[in-house]
Amino acid sequence: MHPLRQLMYPSSIAFWGASNNPMKMGTMQLANILGTGYLGQVFPIHPTETTVMGLPAFKSISDVGSPVDLAQLTLPTEVVPRVLDECGKAGIRRAIVISGGFKEVGGDRGKQLEKEITDIARTHGIRFLGPNCVGIFNTLLDLNSTTIPLPPGGGKIAFASQSGAYTAMINPFLKSQGIRMCQTLSVGNEADIDLVDCLDYLEDEPQVEAIGLYIETVRRPREFLRSARRVSRKKPVIAIYVGGTEAGSRSSLSHTGALSGPDAVYDGLFEQAGVIRAFDVDQMFDFLRALASQPAPAGERMAVISNSGGPGSSLAYHVEKAGLSVPLFSDELSRRLDAITGRLAYVRNPIDLTFDTNTGLFKQLLETVFESGEVDGAFMYGLFGGPDFIVNLAKRFPDFAKLGEEWKAGYTEFIGELSRVPEAFDMPLVVMSFFGADSPTVSPLVEGDIPVYPSASRAARAMKALLDYRRIRDTEGGG
Amino acid sequence: MHPLRQLMYPSSIAFWGASNNPMKMGTMQLANILGTGYLGQVFPIHPTETTVMGLPAFKSISDVGSPVDLAQLTLPTEVVPRVLDECGKAGIRRAIVISGGFKEVGGDRGKQLEKEITDIARTHGIRFLGPNCVGIFNTLLDLNSTTIPLPPGGGKIAFASQSGAYTAMINPFLKSQGIRMCQTLSVGNEADIDLVDCLDYLEDEPQVEAIGLYIETVRRPREFLRSARRVSRKKPVIAIYVGGTEAGSRSSLSHTGALSGPDAVYDGLFEQAGVIRAFDVDQMFDFLRALASQPAPAGERMAVISNSGGPGSSLAYHVEKAGLSVPLFSDELSRRLDAITGRLAYVRNPIDLTFDTNTGLFKQLLETVFESGEVDGAFMYGLFGGPDFIVNLAKRFPDFAKLGEEWKAGYTEFIGELSRVPEAFDMPLVVMSFFGADSPTVSPLVEGDIPVYPSASRAARAMKALLDYRRIRDTEGGG
Repeated sequence: MHPLRQLMYPSSIAFWGASNNPMKMGTMQLANILGTGYLGQVFPIHPTETTVMGLPAFKSISDVGSPVDLAQLTLPTEVVPRVLDECGKAGIRRAIVISGGFKEVGGDRGKQLEKEITDIARTHGIRFLGPNCVGIFNTLLDLNSTTIPLPPGGGKIAFASQSGAYTAMINPFLKSQGIRMCQTLSVGNEADIDLVDCLDYLEDEPQVEAIGLYIETVRRPREFLRSARRVSRKKPVIAIYVGGTEAGSRSSLSHTGALSGPDAVYDGLFEQAGVIRAFDVDQMFDFLRALASQPAPAGERMAVISNSGGPGSSLAYHVEKAGLSVPLFSDELSRRLDAITGRLAYVRNPIDLTFDTNTGLFKQLLETVFESGEVDGAFMYGLFGGPDFIVNLAKRFPDFAKLGEEWKAGYTEFIGELSRVPEAFDMPLVVMSFFGADSPTVSPLVEGDIPVYPSASRAARAMKALLDYRRIRDTEGGG
Repeated sequence: MHPLRQLMYPSSIAFWGASNNPMKMGTMQLANILGTGYLGQVFPIHPTETTVMGLPAFKSISDVGSPVDLAQLTLPTEVVPRVLDECGKAGIRRAIVISGGFKEVGGDRGKQLEKEITDIARTHGIRFLGPNCVGIFNTLLDLNSTTIPLPPGGGKIAFASQSGAYTAMINPFLKSQGIRMCQTLSVGNEADIDLVDCLDYLEDEPQVEAIGLYIETVRRPREFLRSARRVSRKKPVIAIYVGGTEAGSRSSLSHTGALSGPDAVYDGLFEQAGVIRAFDVDQMFDFLRALASQPAPAGERMAVISNSGGPGSSLAYHVEKAGLSVPLFSDELSRRLDAITGRLAYVRNPIDLTFDTNTGLFKQLLETVFESGEVDGAFMYGLFGGPDFIVNLAKRFPDFAKLGEEWKAGYTEFIGELSRVPEAFDMPLVVMSFFGADSPTVSPLVEGDIPVYPSASRAARAMKALLDYRRIRDTEGGG
């Protein structure tokens, strides 16, 4: 069993640094552990308090008297070595060291302390995340040891990050985008566990369908290459790298003690490793949500189904700009599509339904183009879940609110059916919508694991990432 | 006075196509006009109904008996010519023709009908938007004639679009991003009023600080060039163009009857015209919100102020990738910054405060770098408005909720002060945050007209657009 398995699925946690002062970082973290629904045992360790947030507190780990799977240390730098040693003596073999003030601060003392804790850990066989990290979350266990409340769970995305902010502070962004993650690991200074370990661990996590990495440096390039090549055959790996400019590199050095290299070196490494590079964190999650949910397309031929000219044209343009194609449909397929739309709508690709909110049509059209053999994937714009927009109408027509609710119910059922089409045909579907993730229009799509983007270019690039992954998987599989 | 002035600021509107059936597009539009707070007179015209949504309805415009500034026609194609003629005879000189089925459908009949209404309009001196458009909104008048409720008002952005979807359906996206527009015009087939007219009109709208255009074709390139060159000396103009690929062009032709040209032709046109091209609609609004609110930087030297390593490194990287620079601060400036932070924080640029939520520091640091003469603009990450994240903490510490509210109040006041710094120094500030537009953290920034982006690359490119505009303005001004 990979060492991270026990760290990510602990039955019990000893916690240092939480008190009854809500302004302390440790208190915030323990409040999240307690408030998220974690069902394991939690033992606050505190030198003076007898209870912490209502839980019995222990003066030291030796007072706990029962085995503990994981220690989280949110403590002043100088006391970390002593406490880690006590953990080892008490039989704890996994730890998360939140504390900063180690190698990343640049002085000799920090480096020495980091070596000290690494040696102590090695002596006791402790594997640990950090120091200078923000913790983990695992929605499969309702476990969240960061300062930030959990994003919505149920996802198939895992993320390992050399930045703490990207690990946890990003949660409101994920929530607003309808992006669901199941596991996140903040690796901090990587004194022990690093991104390579995270890749190895996530390879065998059955829930995880796509892996994201935030990278300022790869400390073990050879091992990274070997692991990533192997993992990317099974699951897509998307990385962002921000060390490749002068100031980017200067900044990375200062906060994680990382020596970064030029962009081109990392581009080469990622290419060899079968890792897809995203430009920034928003693009990384754009790619991950498609890769975690949709089948990879067999080729570049895309259908565009829209009920509005502008988004249809934009999708056509950006699909081609992304290196995919929007082939003109055959006469036969066009006739079949025309029979469905029964109107003047343009059906040669893009299909433009003109203003139509009949969601049933979209499914019929999608199945027809998927059946035809003329495309490898599809884009859709124009789904409309009902009550989003009727606020002023509802003022004038009180009965209309009821109609809106009926519409919404029918729509939700329809999206459930639509969501199963990509898997049935083994072809990807990507949706463009201006509605928010919690709107009646988009939330059933989020539930149905259909990726939704607010712009044509983002939708198109996510589809391209799916095709890129198909090629990586095929190449790696044959290699 | 520009003809669009009366169309955008009507004292009275006659409306065709609304009834007491909430499923009709005209009804949705009139419900928005009535429900948004428009204070002018509204006259529904309907052949059989005596009242429409509680308003007295008129059989024909000749029954109204008082002068009318604007007609909106949401009618079957075939009756539009007759009604437009009646409008002319009744003295109406401005109209919005929502109805489709004209040139955009491709047949001879559509073309003939479009010529017919254009001739009728000319005979009566009517200037009109459309046909095949979705209406307008003008938040300065609480006037919204589209099917979609208004986005938040109070903005300085205007938008003219050849796509109806981008005009109105995009409102929930704008709302979620905290983007505020004051005026939008959907030009449809541009049978009369086109994008050039919109530019000319918006040039003199005092509230409008930045103009966006969605373009599938420029029908009058010479006039566009002349107008845009003149307008862009006064106000930034950002355009997206999606006709430049094979399928993009095919799609545009089908829905607005527009003949588009290759990307390079439009790039050349935009460059000559002083128009900044954005890649897609999300990027256009990224640029517009910065351009409508921040001073243009005098040069490319940027400060990065962050309380977290990852976003700091990402900003440093993406600022350089965008063609700006992150200069190393002088010893003197570094000493001054160190005196403010009083800690081991890295202050040579990027400034990394490490985890600190003391918002007061940010303003001091910003003023210090702006005063130094060593930068032309600044980026900020790490502002934190309080109660966003304390949900689990508040469960354990009931008193903490009160503390959170105090924090929020102090933060809101602080952001008010921070928001005035860019204008005081005539230097731009751009913020990166993962919080949503309606969060306690970001909403005071939206109020204070500070643009906020959820990723480093988006923030950096928006700043680059500010610099691009500075250069356009300087060049145009000298030419």
